[in-house]
Amino acid sequence: MKDIYIADLVNFDEGTTFDGFFLVLAKQQRTTKNNKPYLNLILGDKTGQLEGRVWELGDPRIARDFDRGDIVKARGSASRFDDRLQMKIDQLRKATAGEADISDMLPSTACNVDDLWHTLLGFVESFTNPDLKLLLSTMLSDPAIAKAYREAPAARQLHHAWLGGLLEHVVSLLNLAERVATHYPMLDRDLLITGVILHDIGKVTELSWETGFEYRVEGVLLGHIQMGVALTEKTIDSLTGFPPKLKTLVLHMILSHHGKLEFGSPKLPMIPEALVLNFLDDLDAKMQAVQSEFDKSIREGKGPDELTGKVWALDQRQLLNTRRWLGES
Amino acid sequence: MKDIYIADLVNFDEGTTFDGFFLVLAKQQRTTKNNKPYLNLILGDKTGQLEGRVWELGDPRIARDFDRGDIVKARGSASRFDDRLQMKIDQLRKATAGEADISDMLPSTACNVDDLWHTLLGFVESFTNPDLKLLLSTMLSDPAIAKAYREAPAARQLHHAWLGGLLEHVVSLLNLAERVATHYPMLDRDLLITGVILHDIGKVTELSWETGFEYRVEGVLLGHIQMGVALTEKTIDSLTGFPPKLKTLVLHMILSHHGKLEFGSPKLPMIPEALVLNFLDDLDAKMQAVQSEFDKSIREGKGPDELTGKVWALDQRQLLNTRRWLGES
Amino acid sequence: MKDIYIADLVNFDEGTTFDGFFLVLAKQQRTTKNNKPYLNLILGDKTGQLEGRVWELGDPRIARDFDRGDIVKARGSASRFDDRLQMKIDQLRKATAGEADISDMLPSTACNVDDLWHTLLGFVESFTNPDLKLLLSTMLSDPAIAKAYREAPAARQLHHAWLGGLLEHVVSLLNLAERVATHYPMLDRDLLITGVILHDIGKVTELSWETGFEYRVEGVLLGHIQMGVALTEKTIDSLTGFPPKLKTLVLHMILSHHGKLEFGSPKLPMIPEALVLNFLDDLDAKMQAVQSEFDKSIREGKGPDELTGKVWALDQRQLLNTRRWLGES
Amino acid sequence: MKDIYIADLVNFDEGTTFDGFFLVLAKQQRTTKNNKPYLNLILGDKTGQLEGRVWELGDPRIARDFDRGDIVKARGSASRFDDRLQMKIDQLRKATAGEADISDMLPSTACNVDDLWHTLLGFVESFTNPDLKLLLSTMLSDPAIAKAYREAPAARQLHHAWLGGLLEHVVSLLNLAERVATHYPMLDRDLLITGVILHDIGKVTELSWETGFEYRVEGVLLGHIQMGVALTEKTIDSLTGFPPKLKTLVLHMILSHHGKLEFGSPKLPMIPEALVLNFLDDLDAKMQAVQSEFDKSIREGKGPDELTGKVWALDQRQLLNTRRWLGES
Amino acid sequence: MKDIYIADLVNFDEGTTFDGFFLVLAKQQRTTKNNKPYLNLILGDKTGQLEGRVWELGDPRIARDFDRGDIVKARGSASRFDDRLQMKIDQLRKATAGEADISDMLPSTACNVDDLWHTLLGFVESFTNPDLKLLLSTMLSDPAIAKAYREAPAARQLHHAWLGGLLEHVVSLLNLAERVATHYPMLDRDLLITGVILHDIGKVTELSWETGFEYRVEGVLLGHIQMGVALTEKTIDSLTGFPPKLKTLVLHMILSHHGKLEFGSPKLPMIPEALVLNFLDDLDAKMQAVQSEFDKSIREGKGPDELTGKVWALDQRQLLNTRRWLGES
Amino acid sequence: MKDIYIADLVNFDEGTTFDGFFLVLAKQQRTTKNNKPYLNLILGDKTGQLEGRVWELGDPRIARDFDRGDIVKARGSASRFDDRLQMKIDQLRKATAGEADISDMLPSTACNVDDLWHTLLGFVESFTNPDLKLLLSTMLSDPAIAKAYREAPAARQLHHAWLGGLLEHVVSLLNLAERVATHYPMLDRDLLITGVILHDIGKVTELSWETGFEYRVEGVLLGHIQMGVALTEKTIDSLTGFPPKLKTLVLHMILSHHGKLEFGSPKLPMIPEALVLNFLDDLDAKMQAVQSEFDKSIREGKGPDELTGKVWALDQRQLLNTRRWLGES
Repeated sequence: MKDIYIADLVNFDEGTTFDGFFLVLAKQQRTTKNNKPYLNLILGDKTGQLEGRVWELGDPRIARDFDRGDIVKARGSASRFDDRLQMKIDQLRKATAGEADISDMLPSTACNVDDLWHTLLGFVESFTNPDLKLLLSTMLSDPAIAKAYREAPAARQLHHAWLGGLLEHVVSLLNLAERVATHYPMLDRDLLITGVILHDIGKVTELSWETGFEYRVEGVLLGHIQMGVALTEKTIDSLTGFPPKLKTLVLHMILSHHGKLEFGSPKLPMIPEALVLNFLDDLDAKMQAVQSEFDKSIREGKGPDELTGKVWALDQRQLLNTRRWLGES
Repeated sequence: MKDIYIADLVNFDEGTTFDGFFLVLAKQQRTTKNNKPYLNLILGDKTGQLEGRVWELGDPRIARDFDRGDIVKARGSASRFDDRLQMKIDQLRKATAGEADISDMLPSTACNVDDLWHTLLGFVESFTNPDLKLLLSTMLSDPAIAKAYREAPAARQLHHAWLGGLLEHVVSLLNLAERVATHYPMLDRDLLITGVILHDIGKVTELSWETGFEYRVEGVLLGHIQMGVALTEKTIDSLTGFPPKLKTLVLHMILSHHGKLEFGSPKLPMIPEALVLNFLDDLDAKMQAVQSEFDKSIREGKGPDELTGKVWALDQRQLLNTRRWLGES
Repeated sequence: MKDIYIADLVNFDEGTTFDGFFLVLAKQQRTTKNNKPYLNLILGDKTGQLEGRVWELGDPRIARDFDRGDIVKARGSASRFDDRLQMKIDQLRKATAGEADISDMLPSTACNVDDLWHTLLGFVESFTNPDLKLLLSTMLSDPAIAKAYREAPAARQLHHAWLGGLLEHVVSLLNLAERVATHYPMLDRDLLITGVILHDIGKVTELSWETGFEYRVEGVLLGHIQMGVALTEKTIDSLTGFPPKLKTLVLHMILSHHGKLEFGSPKLPMIPEALVLNFLDDLDAKMQAVQSEFDKSIREGKGPDELTGKVWALDQRQLLNTRRWLGES
Repeated sequence: MKDIYIADLVNFDEGTTFDGFFLVLAKQQRTTKNNKPYLNLILGDKTGQLEGRVWELGDPRIARDFDRGDIVKARGSASRFDDRLQMKIDQLRKATAGEADISDMLPSTACNVDDLWHTLLGFVESFTNPDLKLLLSTMLSDPAIAKAYREAPAARQLHHAWLGGLLEHVVSLLNLAERVATHYPMLDRDLLITGVILHDIGKVTELSWETGFEYRVEGVLLGHIQMGVALTEKTIDSLTGFPPKLKTLVLHMILSHHGKLEFGSPKLPMIPEALVLNFLDDLDAKMQAVQSEFDKSIREGKGPDELTGKVWALDQRQLLNTRRWLGES
Repeated sequence: MKDIYIADLVNFDEGTTFDGFFLVLAKQQRTTKNNKPYLNLILGDKTGQLEGRVWELGDPRIARDFDRGDIVKARGSASRFDDRLQMKIDQLRKATAGEADISDMLPSTACNVDDLWHTLLGFVESFTNPDLKLLLSTMLSDPAIAKAYREAPAARQLHHAWLGGLLEHVVSLLNLAERVATHYPMLDRDLLITGVILHDIGKVTELSWETGFEYRVEGVLLGHIQMGVALTEKTIDSLTGFPPKLKTLVLHMILSHHGKLEFGSPKLPMIPEALVLNFLDDLDAKMQAVQSEFDKSIREGKGPDELTGKVWALDQRQLLNTRRWLGES
Repeated sequence: MKDIYIADLVNFDEGTTFDGFFLVLAKQQRTTKNNKPYLNLILGDKTGQLEGRVWELGDPRIARDFDRGDIVKARGSASRFDDRLQMKIDQLRKATAGEADISDMLPSTACNVDDLWHTLLGFVESFTNPDLKLLLSTMLSDPAIAKAYREAPAARQLHHAWLGGLLEHVVSLLNLAERVATHYPMLDRDLLITGVILHDIGKVTELSWETGFEYRVEGVLLGHIQMGVALTEKTIDSLTGFPPKLKTLVLHMILSHHGKLEFGSPKLPMIPEALVLNFLDDLDAKMQAVQSEFDKSIREGKGPDELTGKVWALDQRQLLNTRRWLGES
């Protein structure tokens, strides 16, 4: 485990020194307006990311043989620029193998992944539809898929995404879907739950997360919807006797879950289960965005009367934290 | 109670005679392409509506002294035109006072209104917020409001609306909101429930439903959102010590519940409770539309492989009934 | 071969009799405004479709045991209603097996399918890329695919679609793409040609054309883009050593060929070949629509100064036939 | 009255010293790229606003005990950065009570507020409709409303807004509306004039202008349309015998005056007076924006051939000053 | 002058006979559902248009040698079909030369054209800008232009258009523009007035109105904006010494007067005069549409509580007649 | 010919000195954050443009008497700021007449303009339509038009535009149009080719390119579509006996070539030739944008796996270079 984290640094006073391991998320040579060259880095670990600057480029204590994706050991002091904290780096070298743990270097879910995974498998266990149960247990017992599903972030943007993010999002959605499924008897509960588990499964191949979160070229050209459909179809075709109509419905759930053509779903939801999946996925994503903004406002020291920043997921709307404004929390 | 209903007529063979009381929903003088004059009526009762034609205008058994909104007694036989059933009317007279019951004449909810009302009051009873509890019990104990709330349809269009429709919609939404409120701890449950109960309360003055479902002129010029806000604000202002911030939040819930400016909400949802109210209101309306279309497809004899008609609430999309297609129901 | 075709009927004078085989495209029981019942049919053959009416329903010469999709033998006379020609049918019976040829009953391309197919295979033969050549020859030598590809219409709407329409459209596009590929050296010609051949291949499973042109339920829920991608991916996965990057590019060509998210492509064209495919597909479809409208205007007797009807494919725009207006043709 | 104004400073040469009272509109701690800390201020008075910088933070002549909304006395010299003038501040202290006049500190209308108010009351005096006359004189004789109406800016953005801006805008609109009302005899002139006077009255509670122009939280959640309707409705309900239909029309004028749902009006104009109000309000706002841009171009030294900057109120369009281009002014 | 007008016929009882001259606006051969052939005509005169039917096609009293655009003498009786009045025509012949006056045959302005023209010329006379004065007097003194300007309708649709409609619209706009020009001193009044007079002048060549109102093919391909610009440019180029900048401004006024690219203006208004021209043209068109709908509602017997029909010019909105609803008129 | 070009400078190491002639594209006085004044210039020549800074403003070797549009001789050294190369200028003076060639100072086509012009004239020579041939040879033999047509850029933005760009774009389009014209026999080839040659001819007056590429005020107010139509119409009107219908079609081709109202075409394409012109113009512009982005990615050292920057002409989409990704080039 690391000694010092980005989240700790943020609370440092200007001038306090630090010394620790970080993942290099970006590296760029720059010059100040007064022609002074420096190295601009973005360093991260599981608790966040921060800009760092190296001013003494010729100093022998500053390594040159590192790149984006490497883990480095950096020593320096906290500094402020335009009201934002930065790292002023005086010494820097590449970490040797085993010296630091990659799992400490990327943000990851605050939940226990084993618990989340257990919950997910519990939902599959509860199915009464044997075909859907077989499909899901086949897919989730594939070691490569299971590993990736437990690790994958839900999106690329660092501030919205973390290791285990996909699984965390799906489990929240499972609990919500279960509540709604029992409210509307018309819904085929197992089909809905299947859609929840598989809707974003293409993200395990669309994204890479070994050295920061990025789209693979294949991901950009095909997209996680197509990749998820292909993976699911391949599994179904390997099962004997999976009902063709059920196959069509499962694939339709994945294809249509973005709910609108302009959001990249080539088909609109045409069955009640697909309609509900799209609604709940959208609601849950928005509620998480709201919660994040409320947390951020508190971290930034905003008062209860102040609106949050503009929320991308809500068309740049600003929100008010009800409970704080009412003085309830 | 009536002897014969529109719903019965629809199953009549061509030529079968009928004799019963109906509400006149429309009345128009017309002529066939061959210059034969006739009277075209739309007659309705609680089970539906049907077109009727009077061919023998001079016949003394055909009254002339009736108008839209009157109850009439009509006798005639079932007839088909372009595959649709019609009423061929041979005798017609205005009903005398007490001869027929207006409550039989308009479609109304299949649920027990007293039960629905009791459920609604139970939710208010469960509040821990004393101000919101007082606001709602004050409004709902106003006899005029209570009567109208129990009677009002949720919309004007006859095929989507019925007496008690507003209450039925709200109670469905209450149960759904309760489930979702417990899933997201950030939500102020009593505020959300208050929004559910009050969001459409302006419809009790926007619409009239004595003689068919119509918008009042005031309703057209101001809208139920404004009317609901005004009614709520007036009640709040009559209560001593209602917290001003809470007043703002309650009014904001009503104002923003359509979720988009172009749907007539002058403000977008800016608190989590308003966001959830808009989502659930939208989902519940769509799920009811889907259920109605599935019922209609079955009534119309469509096969399990056939898509429904185009659903207005879903941008004219056609849907597939999952369970029927899979042979599950 | 049939003795009489819909196209001949259209030139009949009112009252001329006919006697021939037709495919039943629609069948509906109706009543006139004066309560006279009749059977309304839409009858078609390879040259077009026409409305027909049966007035003497009880006549023993009128069969009752036929339905949509059957071939019938009908006798009657030409009649006019609101300036449109109709068939007044006096006798009607189901055709016996072998009595009529289904290939006469649906509109089909005016081109020689064998020639078109030969041209298509010639393009594949000309490839220098061995992987793409192998992929296409594998797919096109599958008897089921080859049969369906030669038969499939390009769309459902009868007036825009005919047997062999898909193949005819693709061959036109191949010739156009070849000309454009040589104009822009940056283009990978074999990849572009592969895209042309495969872009609509999903239509062979999206549509059915045995008894009129219809979407299958699977086609409605998944769409021809997804179906074409799945078919192509399955074939590629069966080939040893197909380059993974090339696979991604081929699938991307199919996925993106509608050119806009709102037209059902889940990804926009991101390589030059996909961009060109989308442009040419769109241009060729529009030019065919224009040609059809010009032909229709001439058939309808419009003068050279008159604009065509509103063209659906061109946003309901009306066009002017340059050459006719200038008196050049 | 102040000795020196922001507007004077703008014409200073670099290096000229100043000494005067200003309102603190923003205050932020910053650091240069070279790690030099400074205090960044936005200082304003009735003639404009300007950025100021304090470099010698430890200097005892620089106060620390002031905040946004305070009036301060600042001494320093004019300085240029990136072609924009700034204030380099050497001494700074909070003003003592009575030392400076808040009315000098915010931009305010160039017109005489008493004259504007008199004109407004003259319009009310001229009404022939006794109910509307009573409504308006009741509202405008409320001391709190009258005071706020005379003070309120028309919008939050400093460069578009000033004290008395609402009143100035309304009086311009009154004169324009009078001209148009006499052109169209169909218009109810008193109703139109009532709409002009009340359409933005909700801004007196939506905005605060004591220490710069800001939206109140209530203003953000409810909006000035709703607030204006509520204030008007409350007044009407306090009058005996105000005609209900007239009440509906007056409220409709306020509700619909933004003219489009997407601009925040929950109802579109449905009476001629509302239609005209929306047109004239929009035209007058745009003409003021154009005039401001022309003035700004001259201030910035642009030539007659140069287009203005992009005008926000005209969808970022750039304009040409007709008279200057023609050499007429 | 004619003896009988369409407007008179509308008030006839069923069966009343008529005998008069009318312009043939449309002629079509049709058949009833029962196969009875008839001739369907649309006959018009200056007061309106009406459908007419000829049932006895073989009758020697029914001429066959007439076509669209001819004046005919028709005798018959009033008849009703689906609540609309029709003309049942028993005798019909082509009018001989001189027997009827074409000026009686098309709807035309209710104003005195000479007075309107005089007003228009008076505005030109009042100009202080000699170049604009010369431009306009040159154009308006061209006999062909003057004749066409006095005759042209403002649009093709019969119910919105009449002979002299262009001139009537322009004169209304002149009076309105004069009022607004004096309200905004920034405006170049002569340039604005020039724009009002010339903005729609291209309609004199875009439309034809000899035999009903139609677009010419050239009008459809080029549009009245381009045609008006070309006509104006040609005149300016024929004048010696017309200032080039003024030419650009005048042409820009015409080009941009539709105000939006999607309404067919290739340039948006970029000078204040063009901005105002677009606003006033739009307002005046909408006010006329509103007035027409109010008149139509009264003609159709609607009550004061009833909304008008859907107004095309106002995005299908329905309106309420303020004065009638209040009982003021 | 110049000794040193911007393109050479870009490859200089930091500190390398230069000495050469450049065109001043922009000149602005600025100050650093630390209050140090400097002169910021954008200097260009035919190979590109670069930012330059003058720090020693008082130095007698730095001229003050130059302005935008002048050619200057500048001496200094290469410098880096924020990873971008800049010119640090130590000496600077205005060039004397004849010392430098303006043709070296602006970017220009890499093609031989005489060859392009010859190709263009060859297309005109090949016409079979004598009227169109006469029109084009008349226009292109006008020395002023010919000179401007050979010089004009195709657009204002420096990175998309160069001297001779219009001609280069048209010749590429001519070759493409010829290929497509022979594919669709319905097309009038000479009319299509005429449209290609004239569609952007208004740019010769819309833009100025003597001292950088700018819109003239007249260009901004009228646009190149209108200017091209006017120039063409004037020429046609000077020819005796040019067929009026052909004139209308030629003007329509120019008017409609942007293809959509919102792109500034006041009429949509209504003839096949106009439809094709719009498609090919759009395709060719996009293919050039793609090629430019691919070149730029290589210049910037991006790897084959990296997407290009966001392409403005393709709605900010990023592209992948097929051949590079496949390792084919």
